[in-house]
Amino acid sequence: MEEKKGEYVEGLARGLKVLECFDKVHALLTLSEVSRRADLNPAAARRSLNTLERLGYVRRIDRKFVLSARVLTLGSVYLRSANSEELLLPELRRLVGLFGESASVATLDRQEVLYIASYSEQRAKRMMATAGTTFPAYATSLGKVMLSSMGSDELDDYYNKVNLQKLTDKTLNSPEDISKQVALVRELGYATSVDELDYGITSLAVPVKNSAHQTVAAINCSAYSGRVTSESLIEERLEELRVAASRVERVLASHPALMHSLYLPQ
Amino acid sequence: MEEKKGEYVEGLARGLKVLECFDKVHALLTLSEVSRRADLNPAAARRSLNTLERLGYVRRIDRKFVLSARVLTLGSVYLRSANSEELLLPELRRLVGLFGESASVATLDRQEVLYIASYSEQRAKRMMATAGTTFPAYATSLGKVMLSSMGSDELDDYYNKVNLQKLTDKTLNSPEDISKQVALVRELGYATSVDELDYGITSLAVPVKNSAHQTVAAINCSAYSGRVTSESLIEERLEELRVAASRVERVLASHPALMHSLYLPQ
Repeated sequence: MEEKKGEYVEGLARGLKVLECFDKVHALLTLSEVSRRADLNPAAARRSLNTLERLGYVRRIDRKFVLSARVLTLGSVYLRSANSEELLLPELRRLVGLFGESASVATLDRQEVLYIASYSEQRAKRMMATAGTTFPAYATSLGKVMLSSMGSDELDDYYNKVNLQKLTDKTLNSPEDISKQVALVRELGYATSVDELDYGITSLAVPVKNSAHQTVAAINCSAYSGRVTSESLIEERLEELRVAASRVERVLASHPALMHSLYLPQ
Repeated sequence: MEEKKGEYVEGLARGLKVLECFDKVHALLTLSEVSRRADLNPAAARRSLNTLERLGYVRRIDRKFVLSARVLTLGSVYLRSANSEELLLPELRRLVGLFGESASVATLDRQEVLYIASYSEQRAKRMMATAGTTFPAYATSLGKVMLSSMGSDELDDYYNKVNLQKLTDKTLNSPEDISKQVALVRELGYATSVDELDYGITSLAVPVKNSAHQTVAAINCSAYSGRVTSESLIEERLEELRVAASRVERVLASHPALMHSLYLPQ
């Protein structure tokens, strides 16, 4: 980083960490819980919470804090500025119209795939992704496509930071096994995932590239494992998925705000 | 505000203002544009942008800045922590199953209705709301329900802050006309909107109350104006919409993180 000292606002970084420390299991937190989860000293956590409360992003209930619905508006500034759903949903709808089930565009953020847009017949309610959903990259077809764009240093860095877990008994959770798959994905130009993120989900993904041929996103379609196999997805859908990817690439080429919001390989 | 001086982190407030100054028309902004739109001096805007860039929420493209997809994760911390979609979508799906078209739950944030959850047959693609979408309160049935919960001081404050605009030739845009409607909504216990937000949208909304009988949210269903009238919505749907509202009230009563994330009348 080349910015001058004093150009980095610690208070902003801390406040965003405080927002991000809430989740489903930690929806109501005391000051000391926020302090621990955001890795901040109690005084800094208290200043962040007081500020977020005054700005309307956090509510105080007795001695606990919860996020207010205003936090949703932060995600929607991205949706509006990148115009991602309007630009991407037509192509995702077309895929779902052809094949049923669901289709998504995702990018990489930190160690996770981050869904930018998703369209679903809503049959599979359990793991339904919407814009903003994140999943471990190594367990999804979208994520494997993103990992396949990394150089070996970047991939090593990914393994150092990620917490590899067996999400099902099919999940690959060693760097060796994942790297073998990722090399295959690089060679074939597509990735599959069968029951690796959760039982019942089979998916096929291909890269979405920028004008410099770098993978900046991935597009997939998925279906219930009981109805399809990875082989049947490849045979029946790969060609159309590649058509969709090339259309998304053209959309990106003419929409810089969306294009530049995505992951860029180092 | 009763917090001590020094408890308010200006840098955090400024950074959030910077995030919020991006939108569809202003997706790529120079430093001076950010400075003007966020009402910050250039040095403060630059520090915010540098920090947001280093944290991965903003990207720099030549001399312009864009939001990165990571901003989406901020909205999704709310979705995860309030668990709003999982808790509210079943009831919205039931309404859409009965009546078709779309149904939503929204609350009030600043001068706007803020959609918490929405379910749609996707027929009306143009104004499709998703979680995080905001619309002017005075032009929507959901918003009129929220305004009807305000005392007269709070409503005066609303008129002082809001920018009343004619969005269609049906939009009420004077405090007098809106107040008359709002008084009627209070008396009837429901609100309608016909082509006031946009041509073609007719909707019916009822309040969702907390255990102290305060309106904290609203639930609506909407349809294409060519197929329904506000009278037909009231006749055919009001009863089921009230059933849905009372079920949502029971959900809120047992889910404090969602309950306390919503608007509370002063």
